[in-house]
Amino acid sequence: MKLYDGGRAPNPRRVRIFYAEKGIPLPEIVPVDIAAREHLTPEFARINPARRVPVLVLDDGTALAETMAICRYLEGLHPEPALFGATPKQAALIEMWNRRIELGLFASVTAVFRHSHPSMADLERQVPEWAQANRDMVDDQLTLLDLQLAGSRFLCGEELSVADISAGIAIDFMKPARIALPEEFANIRRWHAELSSRPSWRA
Amino acid sequence: MKLYDGGRAPNPRRVRIFYAEKGIPLPEIVPVDIAAREHLTPEFARINPARRVPVLVLDDGTALAETMAICRYLEGLHPEPALFGATPKQAALIEMWNRRIELGLFASVTAVFRHSHPSMADLERQVPEWAQANRDMVDDQLTLLDLQLAGSRFLCGEELSVADISAGIAIDFMKPARIALPEEFANIRRWHAELSSRPSWRA
Repeated sequence: MKLYDGGRAPNPRRVRIFYAEKGIPLPEIVPVDIAAREHLTPEFARINPARRVPVLVLDDGTALAETMAICRYLEGLHPEPALFGATPKQAALIEMWNRRIELGLFASVTAVFRHSHPSMADLERQVPEWAQANRDMVDDQLTLLDLQLAGSRFLCGEELSVADISAGIAIDFMKPARIALPEEFANIRRWHAELSSRPSWRA
Repeated sequence: MKLYDGGRAPNPRRVRIFYAEKGIPLPEIVPVDIAAREHLTPEFARINPARRVPVLVLDDGTALAETMAICRYLEGLHPEPALFGATPKQAALIEMWNRRIELGLFASVTAVFRHSHPSMADLERQVPEWAQANRDMVDDQLTLLDLQLAGSRFLCGEELSVADISAGIAIDFMKPARIALPEEFANIRRWHAELSSRPSWRA
């Protein structure tokens, strides 16, 4: 297998952390330089017509794009530890939180970055009004996350799941998006400190 | 079980179509009137703090929100027909296409509706510039979908999957979003006509 990787961007990091939490060695890495627009070349569009990283190319040549599709494939091959949940109910609750984060905090933080950061001006048709609208939503999204983390060590109980990876990466990505994490979110701070100390988080 | 439903909105429809394609009878339905802002009441926020429909409440009281979490839960209880794929590779390809559609065409069509339709002015902080940016992306997203459908009956082969449900609902929702489907997308038209003729599509 070969992993077309995108360095520090949030989705490539989610996949590498997932590998590390599974205890699976990374496959051959093909670096894709997003800043140099390598993901927008005709060569890369033949691998992923949606022109996004990461992409996992299987040994039979199948190109598997989309972060969560790659992670689910790895979970299918290596069921333990079950980062997507082991029973239908636990799997559904993890999916619910993963999506709440992805469609909420993760989407807003990445929208602020894409639509306001000077380094993205060449890569994105920036809509400053959309950056601002998302910036204004972040506090409510953090409140929802903090409330959930008040009740348990991780988002869906005492074990880490893929929802924690998505949420932790969203918090990390607030820094390049230039959004401060308010002091008051004590549960987020406790949980994020624990995440950041895991060996996987260096991925 | 009880399903808090939202009528003709795209996500409630996806869940009802999923039930129908699985051959599972619908549970008790609790209608939620989005136009009357019932999903924004404090009572509803106790069921789903993210204030979205649909929500499936299990017999033990667990409130399961997020369309795909509900569908995956149903797939866990009733594995056949496998609308999320039966092998790790097929499941990953279906997840890839479902996400390409959800993060692409589905997201753009719903953004156009939410940020430009007069009926949404009271429900959404509308950003007209974001509606326009999304309107401008739809043609490329339709091209990607049409190309994929040129090669097979459904998005991921000869059998319907959850990715077809998401994509078909996105096409349906172009009408209220006031986006025309250009004549040239013959594969989309053929596939969408077949979807629309299925009994599930009346859900």
